[in-house]
Amino acid sequence: MPVGTLGPVKGIDPQDLEQLGFRLMLNNAYHLYLRPGHKVVAEMGGLHRFTGWPGAILTDSGGFQIFSLTKLCKVTDDGVSFQSHLDGSAHFITPETAMEIQEALGADIIMAFDQCVALPAERDVIRDAVRRTTLWAARCQAGRRRTDQALFGIVQGGLDADLRTASARDLVRLGFDGYAIGGLSVGESKEEMYRTLDGTVPELPSTKPRYLMGVGMPENLIEAVARGIDLFDCVVPSRHGRTGWLFTSFGRVVIKQARYLRDEQAIDPACACPVCARYSRAYLHHLYNVKEMLASRLNTIHNLWHFSDFMRRMRTAIAEGTFAKFREAFYRTQRQEPAEVTVLADMETGGGRRSAGDGS
Amino acid sequence: MPVGTLGPVKGIDPQDLEQLGFRLMLNNAYHLYLRPGHKVVAEMGGLHRFTGWPGAILTDSGGFQIFSLTKLCKVTDDGVSFQSHLDGSAHFITPETAMEIQEALGADIIMAFDQCVALPAERDVIRDAVRRTTLWAARCQAGRRRTDQALFGIVQGGLDADLRTASARDLVRLGFDGYAIGGLSVGESKEEMYRTLDGTVPELPSTKPRYLMGVGMPENLIEAVARGIDLFDCVVPSRHGRTGWLFTSFGRVVIKQARYLRDEQAIDPACACPVCARYSRAYLHHLYNVKEMLASRLNTIHNLWHFSDFMRRMRTAIAEGTFAKFREAFYRTQRQEPAEVTVLADMETGGGRRSAGDGS
Repeated sequence: MPVGTLGPVKGIDPQDLEQLGFRLMLNNAYHLYLRPGHKVVAEMGGLHRFTGWPGAILTDSGGFQIFSLTKLCKVTDDGVSFQSHLDGSAHFITPETAMEIQEALGADIIMAFDQCVALPAERDVIRDAVRRTTLWAARCQAGRRRTDQALFGIVQGGLDADLRTASARDLVRLGFDGYAIGGLSVGESKEEMYRTLDGTVPELPSTKPRYLMGVGMPENLIEAVARGIDLFDCVVPSRHGRTGWLFTSFGRVVIKQARYLRDEQAIDPACACPVCARYSRAYLHHLYNVKEMLASRLNTIHNLWHFSDFMRRMRTAIAEGTFAKFREAFYRTQRQEPAEVTVLADMETGGGRRSAGDGS
Repeated sequence: MPVGTLGPVKGIDPQDLEQLGFRLMLNNAYHLYLRPGHKVVAEMGGLHRFTGWPGAILTDSGGFQIFSLTKLCKVTDDGVSFQSHLDGSAHFITPETAMEIQEALGADIIMAFDQCVALPAERDVIRDAVRRTTLWAARCQAGRRRTDQALFGIVQGGLDADLRTASARDLVRLGFDGYAIGGLSVGESKEEMYRTLDGTVPELPSTKPRYLMGVGMPENLIEAVARGIDLFDCVVPSRHGRTGWLFTSFGRVVIKQARYLRDEQAIDPACACPVCARYSRAYLHHLYNVKEMLASRLNTIHNLWHFSDFMRRMRTAIAEGTFAKFREAFYRTQRQEPAEVTVLADMETGGGRRSAGDGS
C-alpha cells in the first residue's frame, strides 16, 4: 500500500496510482480526524468519493500517530488523551471513537485501536500495552456499527517473543478479518525484526491477510514475504522519492549527484515505468537540483512503480514456486553497483530535504 | 503559452499540457542558461528532448529577467553585464551570445535580445533603450547561425506612443518572423496598456504573429485579442493556481475560503477540465488547507484548462464573426458573483503563499 497521509500520496493523482498497478492504499485516520475532520469526510460521501481514488482503502487506527506525534499523551484503559501536534488542542480517543472515526471515513479495511510502545521499554510496560491492546481490540469489535468494512487486529509485544505470541493468540481468539503486526520498524535491527516475524507469523492464520505495518525497504519486504507476510504499507517509495533516492534493479540512484548532469540514460534502463520511458537522469537531476515540484512527482512515480513491480514479481514467483530463486537473484543484483551504497549513508543520516513532517 | 521557467510548468507533466490543448509553451533562456546551462541542454539533445515536451517551444531572450532579477546590471551598446540572482557570479550577455544560448537550447521560436526599461522612466532613457533594442535586433539577425528557428523582434518604447511607433517601424524594416510587444504588464494601468496596443499593433504586419509578452488576466487577453494580438505568455494560470486562485466562467473562486469546506460542487460546474470532472471544491479546499503538493498541481491544471479553453473559444468566435458578442458575454458573466471580487483584494496585495520567486 502506498501511503496517502491526508488523502493523496504527495503529488500523485489517483489515476497515476491505478496505472502503477496499486489496488489498495492507506490513509491516516489520525490526520484526517484533525483535518478536515471525519465528519466532513462522511458528509462528502466518504474517503473514496472525497479523494477520487477508485481502488480500495485501509485506514490505520491513529494509534501509532497519537503515540509518536502528539504532546502530553496519557494512556489509561479507558483511552488516550493527547494534544494535537498541529495546534495543541485537547483530544480523547477510545477504541469506540476510533471505530466511529474510521466508520465515518469509510475505508474498506479498518484497524483496531492499539497501544504502540516506543522501544526500548521495560518488559512490564510492553506487557501492559499487550494487555490493553487485547482489551481495546475486543471493545473495537463490540463498538463497531458498520458491517461492510473488514476489521484487522494489531499484534503488539515489542521484541519479546513470549509477549508477541501472547498478543497474537489473544487476537486470534477474538477473531479478525486480518491480522497486522505493529510496533516494528521503529528503530530495531533487521535481525530483531525478522526474529520477531519468525515467532509471530506462525501464530496467525494463513487463511487471513497478514500485514506488517510501516515496512519497508525492498530487503525487508522480501524477507517478510519469505516469512509469510502478505501486505505492507510504507512511505519509503514516496518520501525517499522526494529526497531524490531512486530504487532500481541494480541498487540505488541518488539523483542529486553531479555524475548525472549529462547522463542521457533512464533511471533504470530495465524499468518499464512512465518516468523511465520519457526522461533522462540528466533531466531528473536538473529538476531536483532546481527544486522543481515535478522532481518529487516523477521520482515518486518511479519509486512507486518499482515497489509495485517488485511485489508483483514476488507474487508471480510464489505462484510459480520460484520464490527461493527470486530471493537469491535479488541479493545478487543489488550488489552490482556497490559504489552506490556508500554514497547513500549521508542521505540516511542527513534526512530528507523535503521530508513531510506528517507521515508520507 | 503556459510558462515553464526551468523546463516544466510547475508540477505539470508535458502529457498534461498536451491534453489541456496547448501546442506551444515558453521556457526562460536566462534561467536555463544558469541552470543546467545551455550547453548541457544542447548536449542532451535540446529542450524538446530534455524536457519531454512534444509540442513547440518559444524561449524568451533573457532580457526581461536580466533587467528585473539580477544585481549590478550594467548596460552598454555592446551588451549587459550583471550578477546572477542565484550566486552573484558575473556574466556578460550580448545580442550574439543571446542567439548562441537560444540556438543551443533549440526552441522553435527564439526572441531578439532587447532592453526592457522599468517604468516610470525619463523619456530619454526610454528613447535610448529603443535605439539600443533596434541595434541589438539587427545584431541578433546577423549573429544567428541556425536557419530552422523563427526569430521574433521585440517592440519597446514604454508608454510613449511616438517611441512605440518608432520601435515598431525599426523592427518591421529589419524584418522578423513575428513581432512581440515587450515592456508592458509591468505595473501600468490597463487603460495605458490598451492605449499602447491601439497605437502599436497597427504598425505590425497582420500576416505575422503578434505577441504580447507577459500578459495576462482574462480581461487583458480579450482586450488584446480585440486589438489584433495573436499570442501571449503568462504565469497567471500556474502561479495563481498555486495560491488557490481559480478562474471560472462566473469569476474567481478562492479555494482557501471556509465556505468551500463542505461544498460538493466542482470548481466550475460548467468546466470540462479533468479536475472539475473528478474533484469537489471541498477536496480542493482540504488539499490547499493542509498544504498538499497536489493542491498546486490540480489548481494549475484547472486554470490552464480555463485559459486554453478561453483562447480556443476566442479563436472560434473570430472565425465565426461573433467576437463582439463573445466579448460582451464575457463582461456580463464575469459580473454574476460580485461577492467573489471583493474577497480577492487580499490575495492580490498579500501575494502568493507559494510564490515561485523565479518566474512561473
